[in-house]
Amino acid sequence: MSDTNKLYHQYSDILKKIADVKYASAVLQWDQETYLPAKGADARSRQLATLNELAHQLFTDDKLGKLLQELITRTDLGFKERRNVELTLEEFEKQQKFSSAFVRNMSQAVSTAFYAWIEARKQNSFLIYEPALTALVELKKEEAQLLGYKTHPYNALLDQFEKGATVEILDAAFEKVLEPLKALMTEVMAQPKPSVEFLNQHYPKQQQWDWGMYLIKQLGFDFDAGRQDISEHPFTTNFSARDVRITTRIDEGDFANMTWSCIHETGHALYEQGLPDEEYGLPSGEYASLSIHESQSRLWENCVGRSKPFWNHYLPVLKNYFPEQLNGINADDFTNAINCVEPSLIRTEADELTYHFHVFIRYSLEKKLINGDIAVKDIPGYWNNAYKQYLGVNVPDDKRGCLQDVHWSHGSFGYFPTYSLGSFYAAQFWLKAKEDIPALEKKIADGNTSELLNWLRNNIHCHGKTYTSEELCKMVTGKALDSNLFIEYLRNKLLN
Amino acid sequence: MSDTNKLYHQYSDILKKIADVKYASAVLQWDQETYLPAKGADARSRQLATLNELAHQLFTDDKLGKLLQELITRTDLGFKERRNVELTLEEFEKQQKFSSAFVRNMSQAVSTAFYAWIEARKQNSFLIYEPALTALVELKKEEAQLLGYKTHPYNALLDQFEKGATVEILDAAFEKVLEPLKALMTEVMAQPKPSVEFLNQHYPKQQQWDWGMYLIKQLGFDFDAGRQDISEHPFTTNFSARDVRITTRIDEGDFANMTWSCIHETGHALYEQGLPDEEYGLPSGEYASLSIHESQSRLWENCVGRSKPFWNHYLPVLKNYFPEQLNGINADDFTNAINCVEPSLIRTEADELTYHFHVFIRYSLEKKLINGDIAVKDIPGYWNNAYKQYLGVNVPDDKRGCLQDVHWSHGSFGYFPTYSLGSFYAAQFWLKAKEDIPALEKKIADGNTSELLNWLRNNIHCHGKTYTSEELCKMVTGKALDSNLFIEYLRNKLLN
Repeated sequence: MSDTNKLYHQYSDILKKIADVKYASAVLQWDQETYLPAKGADARSRQLATLNELAHQLFTDDKLGKLLQELITRTDLGFKERRNVELTLEEFEKQQKFSSAFVRNMSQAVSTAFYAWIEARKQNSFLIYEPALTALVELKKEEAQLLGYKTHPYNALLDQFEKGATVEILDAAFEKVLEPLKALMTEVMAQPKPSVEFLNQHYPKQQQWDWGMYLIKQLGFDFDAGRQDISEHPFTTNFSARDVRITTRIDEGDFANMTWSCIHETGHALYEQGLPDEEYGLPSGEYASLSIHESQSRLWENCVGRSKPFWNHYLPVLKNYFPEQLNGINADDFTNAINCVEPSLIRTEADELTYHFHVFIRYSLEKKLINGDIAVKDIPGYWNNAYKQYLGVNVPDDKRGCLQDVHWSHGSFGYFPTYSLGSFYAAQFWLKAKEDIPALEKKIADGNTSELLNWLRNNIHCHGKTYTSEELCKMVTGKALDSNLFIEYLRNKLLN
Repeated sequence: MSDTNKLYHQYSDILKKIADVKYASAVLQWDQETYLPAKGADARSRQLATLNELAHQLFTDDKLGKLLQELITRTDLGFKERRNVELTLEEFEKQQKFSSAFVRNMSQAVSTAFYAWIEARKQNSFLIYEPALTALVELKKEEAQLLGYKTHPYNALLDQFEKGATVEILDAAFEKVLEPLKALMTEVMAQPKPSVEFLNQHYPKQQQWDWGMYLIKQLGFDFDAGRQDISEHPFTTNFSARDVRITTRIDEGDFANMTWSCIHETGHALYEQGLPDEEYGLPSGEYASLSIHESQSRLWENCVGRSKPFWNHYLPVLKNYFPEQLNGINADDFTNAINCVEPSLIRTEADELTYHFHVFIRYSLEKKLINGDIAVKDIPGYWNNAYKQYLGVNVPDDKRGCLQDVHWSHGSFGYFPTYSLGSFYAAQFWLKAKEDIPALEKKIADGNTSELLNWLRNNIHCHGKTYTSEELCKMVTGKALDSNLFIEYLRNKLLN
């Protein structure tokens, strides 16, 4: 083994141990959101804080710093290995900016906010959430100061979810799409409204669960390398590429809620299960970015899972689960209903078009929060106004308003814009996949989605974090991200 | 705050962080035995190894050592605080004997053995288990050497489960009880054999589960501070006194299997839920010893859960779950059946009398294994002979023989004797509780077990590890452990 190899080996051993602690923390968090008994919350918060503190201590250890400084000078590193070292060095320098105490406080504040959010949703009152969220927002402001930024403190937070993203870039991106989306919304809503009532009949819990499990398996989710459970808010997490956990929730009065959450999380999970397991703990074994992660979930949820070919195949199967509820419904009726454009209250249930107004509203709100332009106590008022302004809907209560999403309670400020970027990437990847795979939609209509999965595996999943979102997009599609393609995709889909 | 208080505070902060890591490891292990997908095993093994290594590193840190050395000289520590420091110092000195690498190797070997055991049971072949078990036994031998011992290497392992236990003490204890048990067995088996067939009808899974959950709740298990799940081998674990997890397994052809496993694990769980939560991470917040832990499970399982008063109350309820299976069975029939003495193959399903032969066989085997008198490959032969000799039964296969218990796959050698000690303590506590609580059996016959639980809480649970098994026994019952009381309890119960 060359000297460089030896050093790289030492480096990768350390990273794997850090990953062990981070994944252990992820297991505790998964358990917290699925199975933890109520009284276990306090101990769990401190256990998570200790693990996060330990992971941070391991990551900021001098020994790792010296190894990285040495390795970065080596000219005999392979391409992937060099990228790993570069990315780890960036992360190392970032972690140096945080003290152990800060990491511990943040972890505790996140846990406290999480339980406060659960309780606030139960009682449908933002007031219950306000104190914990206020404390957390103050810490996020401190985080932005510690990290440093140009022009806007929110940039420091954005960068952690999507490298290089700034308010300047995102403001421009939203400006570019919101007008065409508004115009398209007007056109679409002038069309006859499809019948959607059949989606809101009684769909019993157990049948929904069975159907969801069936569908997930069909899409290629490997149940020997993962599982699905129930949680308050659907999410995907993983403890290695061979242990990927997704969750869902079931609303007996709304068929759509669970089904597309299942497909969405499966999209995330297929990405995680497709990452190179032998790169465990290294950047090359991690997802590229959150927008690319989201491109995978949105591609499966929308480009595939709301397409007519897909339901040509699956509707007859679905009717076996719900023969009465779907009696007389054909694939056209079904696809029209699940693509009905209608401004609404809940992001995760929104159609593909109005979805981006939801994202934009929270993005704009977060910018102001972190900048101090608005205070936490002003959130409900701001929220309800914005929903009226952009979506024309009246928010009846906090649960269906600003309490709907879990992200803040995970400490994730700056995450939301990746949802829109992810949708744009999804459309661009989807159009390219259709070029590359002969008769893809015909195959999907035959129930064959494995060729698409293989295409994603070979073009995206296998690369881990070796390329940035932009590099990956160019490699895969031959061009930079172009949100016009998303608008084009939507127009084709939604206009008769 | 006095200087001593300040030091004690620092000490307790460190212990709480160590507990966080240990409990995190326990969460990962719980998940491993309940929900982990098959392919997640390798990553889980290394995650557990890293957490165990980190806990060990935290425990052997110089700073903790210095604190302990200083605190032990302080004369102004309270009684409980002093005991905590003494017990921690003992553990500190023990942990110093292990290297990080040894802890990591042990953790990996345990995980490997666990998966090998699961697979070996699936294929019903000890051969599949043999290599992993051989590696583990070698490490346990090394552990005994590192710890040091007098007279017998097995003493070093025993001491970790039951402080002060030695082969000399245990050999004498078993010698004292085995003969009277044999004599009692002859007497009991000369009586007319009760009818037991009704226990082996078809008892559907879901009804068994529902019944078990009902019963656990009735016994006082707090579902806001714990939960029950399914695993290959029933166990209890906890991540704080407010998060106690039990597991069970269901055999549709054997009603007894799940019910008494539920009561047994609930006994363990009530103890954990009764430990002082404010002492989290400190010895005073931990169980006293494994024999005392087992006394709680055996007391509920046998003294309560196989008693006639108990079933006078619960049989009518049980009949609501299984009206056909229990049609015509009265409380006498039922109690006689569930107390039927019959030498058998599986320890966890054994009656209260023959149970101790199961324990003695494994104890004897472990002594020889650790001493090198027999090799791992000889286990099935040794096992089958011993079962023939002591219980007169022919072991038909490894699954119903030496593969039946999980303990070795947890690295637990020296654990089994605490099962017998626990039964002896249980009988002694039970006789004392009947003295202390007026009309206890009448109350149990009325479905009231809460007075008994309170008695256990106030006399045993609340003390944590502050007293040794022996001290606790004397405090609670006024005398040292006396296995004659166990024999007396059994004779009264089993002879008509």
